[in-house]
Amino acid sequence: MGLPPRAIRILGIDPGLRVTGYGVIDQEGQKLSYVASGVVRTKDGELPERIQVLFAGIGEILEAYRPGACAVEKVFVNVNPQSTLLLGQARGAAIAALTAAGQSVYEYTALQVKQAVVGNGHADKRQVLHMVMRLLKLPGEPSMDASDALACAICHAHGGTGLGALTTAGRRRRGGRLL
Amino acid sequence: MGLPPRAIRILGIDPGLRVTGYGVIDQEGQKLSYVASGVVRTKDGELPERIQVLFAGIGEILEAYRPGACAVEKVFVNVNPQSTLLLGQARGAAIAALTAAGQSVYEYTALQVKQAVVGNGHADKRQVLHMVMRLLKLPGEPSMDASDALACAICHAHGGTGLGALTTAGRRRRGGRLL
Repeated sequence: MGLPPRAIRILGIDPGLRVTGYGVIDQEGQKLSYVASGVVRTKDGELPERIQVLFAGIGEILEAYRPGACAVEKVFVNVNPQSTLLLGQARGAAIAALTAAGQSVYEYTALQVKQAVVGNGHADKRQVLHMVMRLLKLPGEPSMDASDALACAICHAHGGTGLGALTTAGRRRRGGRLL
Repeated sequence: MGLPPRAIRILGIDPGLRVTGYGVIDQEGQKLSYVASGVVRTKDGELPERIQVLFAGIGEILEAYRPGACAVEKVFVNVNPQSTLLLGQARGAAIAALTAAGQSVYEYTALQVKQAVVGNGHADKRQVLHMVMRLLKLPGEPSMDASDALACAICHAHGGTGLGALTTAGRRRRGGRLL
């Protein structure tokens, strides 16, 4: 669990109300190493209790791995507005847990994550999983939620795109933020 | 600011990403007294920073007024999915701030709040404001966001409906929770 000297530890988060994936990697120059991954699950029930579980779960992950930066996947708008609202609430609670702990939070769209990890913004989840396993030399397959979170952390390690100064709509991106 | 003996202090929250209203009242039997109200504003900018401001702002309100219960308005799904997502994130961060401080959180729909305060679930915001001022004997007009938050606190004080055992779709409500 010790952080190598000159390495940066990155926590990736793929938020969801039922399942939130997380993935921790260390970056030392171009070298990425897997540290940990998993999920925070909340049981069906009242929303405030689920938010409490999610918030506390992320707090425990921060306590255990002490990352230097956090990358959170931007969620897409669901066709079902109620699902969008639930997902938004989970994401808000997850980001609150990170910022409340003094973490710097960077946001990446699924397109940016796929571009950075697979080199194709329209790659499917299996391709992302395959590349996550290859880039981090994983001996076994992580869950899809954990894989997406690890991919988000890799995206941050690669400077948001993995392709250097990619420009989108005339704006230069750095670290996932529109400048 | 002191809490009268046998009184319960209730914090109402009307969440929003730009403006979150809050209202604090004391309930002693049937008697309600105004304590404080206002808003937490976040400036345009990165979402994580706005969530941090909202989370910290609610933390300060809890610290200052130490409520015994919190009532949060259930937000409606907006026609614009992006707005729904932003609102959901604000609401998730607000609820996380409450539960992280060990507060019990109760949720009420706008319909329940209006029913409890005005006696008409389809009352408009002006009618809600008028009744909030009357019930709490306010000398001046609070902002609409603060009024909605105070109305939510009053709704909780009135047991969720103000009409006793109101039933909706065959389910009995108590304290805003579906039993």
